[in-house]
Formats: sequence, C-alpha cells, structure tokens
Amino acid sequence: MTSQKAEPGQILWDIKDRVVTVTLNRPDRKNPLTFGIYADLRDRFRALAYDDQIKAVVITGAGGNFSSGGDVHEIIGPLTKMDMPHLLEFTRMTGDLVKAIRACPQPVIAAVDGICVGAGAIIAMASDLRYGTPDCKTAFLFTRVGLAGCDMGACAILPRIIGQGRASDLLFSGRIMRAEEGERWGFYNRLVPAAYLLAEAQKTAHMLAHGPTFAHGVTKNQLNMEWDMSLDAAIEAEAQAQAICMQTKDFVRAYEAFVKKETPIFEGD
Amino acid sequence: MTSQKAEPGQILWDIKDRVVTVTLNRPDRKNPLTFGIYADLRDRFRALAYDDQIKAVVITGAGGNFSSGGDVHEIIGPLTKMDMPHLLEFTRMTGDLVKAIRACPQPVIAAVDGICVGAGAIIAMASDLRYGTPDCKTAFLFTRVGLAGCDMGACAILPRIIGQGRASDLLFSGRIMRAEEGERWGFYNRLVPAAYLLAEAQKTAHMLAHGPTFAHGVTKNQLNMEWDMSLDAAIEAEAQAQAICMQTKDFVRAYEAFVKKETPIFEGD
Amino acid sequence: MTSQKAEPGQILWDIKDRVVTVTLNRPDRKNPLTFGIYADLRDRFRALAYDDQIKAVVITGAGGNFSSGGDVHEIIGPLTKMDMPHLLEFTRMTGDLVKAIRACPQPVIAAVDGICVGAGAIIAMASDLRYGTPDCKTAFLFTRVGLAGCDMGACAILPRIIGQGRASDLLFSGRIMRAEEGERWGFYNRLVPAAYLLAEAQKTAHMLAHGPTFAHGVTKNQLNMEWDMSLDAAIEAEAQAQAICMQTKDFVRAYEAFVKKETPIFEGD
Repeated sequence: MTSQKAEPGQILWDIKDRVVTVTLNRPDRKNPLTFGIYADLRDRFRALAYDDQIKAVVITGAGGNFSSGGDVHEIIGPLTKMDMPHLLEFTRMTGDLVKAIRACPQPVIAAVDGICVGAGAIIAMASDLRYGTPDCKTAFLFTRVGLAGCDMGACAILPRIIGQGRASDLLFSGRIMRAEEGERWGFYNRLVPAAYLLAEAQKTAHMLAHGPTFAHGVTKNQLNMEWDMSLDAAIEAEAQAQAICMQTKDFVRAYEAFVKKETPIFEGD
Repeated sequence: MTSQKAEPGQILWDIKDRVVTVTLNRPDRKNPLTFGIYADLRDRFRALAYDDQIKAVVITGAGGNFSSGGDVHEIIGPLTKMDMPHLLEFTRMTGDLVKAIRACPQPVIAAVDGICVGAGAIIAMASDLRYGTPDCKTAFLFTRVGLAGCDMGACAILPRIIGQGRASDLLFSGRIMRAEEGERWGFYNRLVPAAYLLAEAQKTAHMLAHGPTFAHGVTKNQLNMEWDMSLDAAIEAEAQAQAICMQTKDFVRAYEAFVKKETPIFEGD
Repeated sequence: MTSQKAEPGQILWDIKDRVVTVTLNRPDRKNPLTFGIYADLRDRFRALAYDDQIKAVVITGAGGNFSSGGDVHEIIGPLTKMDMPHLLEFTRMTGDLVKAIRACPQPVIAAVDGICVGAGAIIAMASDLRYGTPDCKTAFLFTRVGLAGCDMGACAILPRIIGQGRASDLLFSGRIMRAEEGERWGFYNRLVPAAYLLAEAQKTAHMLAHGPTFAHGVTKNQLNMEWDMSLDAAIEAEAQAQAICMQTKDFVRAYEAFVKKETPIFEGD
C-alpha cells in the first residue's frame, strides 16, 4: 500500500507564482484519505525538499470541507483484518506524511473549512500555520473508532500548540474543537469567513514565498530541531544557523534597501 | 514516614461502574495532606496500574475545598527539624505521588472547588483533566513558605499546561490563579458551578471508562513518553503504539458498529 | 567586538533596595543595540550570578520605547561585510546575552513600552516576566531583514511561551504582535498604562527581592534545567532541589512566622 498513488483528480496540485495549492479533492465524501492518497501526499511533500520553484504551500479541501480523515470503507475496514507487519507499514506511512510536512523547507499553511477530523486534523496540526473558518469543526477523533489519541505525532505536537491540558481533553474525548476554541487556544492562527479563506491563506503564502525563503527554510528546520534541545544547545544552534543566513544575498539586499529607504526584493539566496 | 497510611476516613475511595472517586476528606481543615495521606495516595495510585476494574479516576475534596496542601503542623513543622536524608525521603515520596498519577493508565480528572493550593495544586496539575468552579482559588504557594516553585514537578509540568511566562508568574510569586485565569490559560478544561462540579467530572469519567480504555491507557503513556522526545522519534513511537491499538477488539467493534450505523460498545480489550 | 563596552550613559544601572533597574538609554533612536551594548549587557548579566546585593532585575528602555533591536548602521551594515568566523563570533555573543539572562539567579522582569523589536523582543522573551503597555509593539522581525526567525533562541523559547502555532506566525512573518495579543497569548503577564509601567515592574521586583531569594534562584535554575528533561527525571530533580531549600533558614522563618500569625521576613539564606 505504501507505494500506491492517488487516483487522478483526488489531489489537485496547482502551482502559481512560487506557491503550490494542494487540494484534497473528493468533495462528495468530504475528502477522505485512502492508502493511495496518503502515499501520494507523502511523496509529494518529500519531493518539495528538492523543489526550488515552490516556496510556500497551501493545503485545503474541496467543497467546503477540509478532510474527514481515513476512509472508513477503504482504510478502516481493511485495517481491521491486517496483520501486525502490515499495520505497522500503514502507521509508519501516515507518520511519514507528517515527517514530510515538517521536513520540507517551505512553510505550509492549512486552510480549513467545514469538517477537519482524524488524519485531516493531523495534517492541519502538522502544518506551520492554520487558518480556519468560524464554522469549521476539528476533531482528533481516533478514540471514537476505538484507537488511541497518539496518531501521527498528536501526543507530541498538539500539546505544544494548545497546551497539555487542552490537548489531553481533545485526545481522550475525541470531541469537536469549535472554531472559536481553536482560535482562542492557538490552534488556528486566524478565523476567516469561508468566502475569503483560501484567498487569505494564499495571500500569506505569497508573501512568504516572496520573502527570504532560504531563511524561512532555516527557521522551519530550527523549529523542528530545537523541539527537544536544551536551552543552551538551542541558543548555540541558532548562533550557527543565523550566521549562515547572514552570508546570504537576501541579508545584503535588505540592508541596502533599508539604506535607500526602499522595500527589499528577496530572491531566496 | 513513607510507609505510613492515612487514618481511617481521611481518604474516601468510592468505586462505581468502573470509576473511582477519590475524596480528600478532612473538610474542617480544607483537606490538608499528612505524611500518611501522601504515602497512602501514592500506593493507591500505584496499585491502579494493575487494577482492571477501575477505568477512570475522579479526585476531589470534601466540604467545598480541594486541598490546602501539606499540613502546616503535621508536615511543615517536622520538616523544619529534619536532616537531609529524611528531607529527601519526603520530597521523593511527594514526587512519587505525581509519578504514580501520571503512570496509571486511567485518565485522572481533578474536580476542584474552593482552595486548591500547594500540594493540592500539584495534584490537580498532575491530573489529565481539570474541572474547576468559578470561585476556586489555585496557588503554587511554595515561595510563601520560603521554598522554591520546583515542587513535585511543577517547573516541568506547569509550563507545558499554561506556558512558560504564566507558569513563571505563578511559581515566583506564589499568587492565587483566579478561576477565570485558570480557564483562559488552559489549566482548567472547564468551569462548572459548584453544585454540578462532581457530577460533571464523574460524567466525563464515566464516558471515558466506557470508551476504548486500553487505547486511553496508550494515549496517556504516549503523552508522558513523548514529553522530551524528538519530533521524528515521537512519530515513530506513535506508529508502533497505534499499530498495537489496531489489533484490539475495540477497533473492530467500532468499525462494525459504524457499518451497522450503531453506537459501538467498547470493552477495553 | 565581543570585548567592547557600551559608551557611557548608553546603559543605566540603578540599584535600589536589592533591585537593579537596567535602562537601555539611547532614546533618540529608540534604544538600539550596538556591539558594545551587547557585550556590556552580557558581562553585566553574567556578573549578577556572583552578586549577592542584587536580588531582582527590571529591564526597560528610556523615552517610551523598549528597544529597536540591533542598530542598522552600527550592526547590520558591518555584518553584511563580515566573514564567517566574525559572524559566528557575533551571533554567539548575542546568544550569550540570552544565556546570561537565563543563568542569573535573579528573576528578570522586562518593562516594555512602545517599540520592542528584533533583539529587543528577544531580551523581553528571555526575561522571566514581561509587563507591557496597551500600545507596545513587539516584533521578531528578523525575516524583514532577510534573516531567519531563529535568533538568540527564539525558535526554542517563544513556542514555550505562546505555543508553537502562534510562534510560527510571528517568526515566519516578522509581524507586530499587538499588546492585546501579547497578553492573551501569555507573552505579557500584564498590561499596565505607560505611566505606571516601571513602578509596577519595580513593585513586583521589590516583592521578589524581599522574598526567599535563594529559593527563587533554585526555581529559575529548575525552569531552565527541566526544559528538556523527561517527566520522571524532572520530578527527581525537583525532589533534590526542594530538599535543599528545606534546609534554608527562610523555610524555618516562614514556619515560625506562620505559627505566630506573623508575616515572615525572608533573608535569602
């Protein structure tokens, strides 16, 4: 299953001016994931690490929903009949998708409307920024299907975003986090009316994609690397990382633009 | 002191339908802890790891208060006269209570009314979920008795729940966190009028105790284990943990119930 | 550059009743930092570890602003022409300032009005407590000058204060965090009208400086040390640290005052 591909049209991949908009596109079923869609997304996010045309990513769902998570018929059914080596092959594949979203140097913005549950909520959680709508419904509902809350990194990542107590509530209960809670708790960076959601996410992505993108990749890498570093080690790691960025042309461009009272034009090198 | 027991009636242990309600019961003095109560609670929480009749825990205090913490006369007085080996025996015993609350597979819900200070605040902090009342007063007041804020894990756990800045405020000042702050900062999952507090906590405990309890234990274990793991290690750990849960009968029960459009009945195996 | 000093008058160092108020004092330019000011601040904070007259620190800026960060002309210009060994010498010096603020046993309170950006925002972030004003503007604007958000520990520390999602927003965009956001997210412990800001910070510093200051130093050390410890290791570390505090005279003083129904007078030993 881990070498499958999505069927044509299930994932839209639209590149415009350095930004790729990834759309989960099975709107009639609220964009559930299949083995093929998981594997395909993993491969696409992995490839982003070597893609120098794409500088920021927006991920969204078609038809007013983000994603209903793993397809009950195409994933959960087969899993109930699988032996352990194949189960582990599956859970590692889903984990690899999260690793790939975190490992690509491009900032990833999730644009979330409607239903965002299970693996859908995980993809949003693994993104760097999250924009929601006032009506979006987010649930880490693994417990509802008899599983644990520890899916694809949720027990490590969700507490860092919204705090240990609130993460425990969501992971043990599987309940829906209302949009207002999501914003108040720091899961959603912003709530935007549905009509403007994708445009706002793309606007931010465009802004980032035309910023110092080499430096953005360094920022993202450090956010990942310093996750479990000691304070002093993290400070030393940043001294090295920022010294590297100080030898980029973008740093010189910013300085020269400042002196001339102009807006810098960054090139990502 | 570490092998003492609580005196009869100081800890109520009421089991009903898979849920134990633990009540700190010295209401005339706002439920302070003694050497015996600490040791007894530690032993009871440790035993929960091997108890397959109890699937969730509610911890509360009698008489409108949660706990006033270590008894000034029965604990603080003796401590001021103790030598180092015995002091360390005491602080390790109190730490062992927190370790036991975290290590038991059952979700622990603190139902907090009135005064919740010192070791009382720590017990609430060590729980998985916290329900308070609009008037509850929570303080990590160790500094008020000349001690450091680092008591029983507070410098590690509190920042993960409410953030480093707010935890620093509470731990350096020893001041009361108002109920409204506690909810806003994510310490309290919910504020409930005092009259309904215990019933609401028990309702959530009942819901969890009738859920996929094996998986809940895995969730709790991963929340603990991934505390200081790297991102990638945490994701791999969850791949293994969730694959284990996919071989439970509860997972099959959930799938079969879904297909039949029924509500699954979980058994915890 | 790392052995330079601030020019006379650029840093005010005012000691009163166990509290030092440190004022960044180049108000005509919104208190930017120079190589000399960085090195000087680093040395002064390092020396605090051995200073037993000073028990708490307030850091603020003159003239209605906190700090505009690294001076564009005196720092950023030269950096664009520097070779790697000297760049690393610089970034390590700035990191050493953060390490020194974290390593001194005194609680550090940042009193922030007006502009607080770049290295200024970092100094506030590295402090233990932060008081702002309703109009203060805080930005981790490194990306605006073509650099990464990982400056002086920001990718490690900021997520622990305000959560991973909100920190990602600020570090990738470089945008201003409004005062209201700063308070709501836990960056600012309190917002105070500008006219009372310094007095309120000094009042808290005075209170802490007259508390159990040995224990406060232990609290601060544990907050740093437990950053990346496992839960169980942190609990054991606190058992040891608190046992040490139980052998201080301040602990006895607090107990005796309690028995006599008096307010304890702490001496920090």
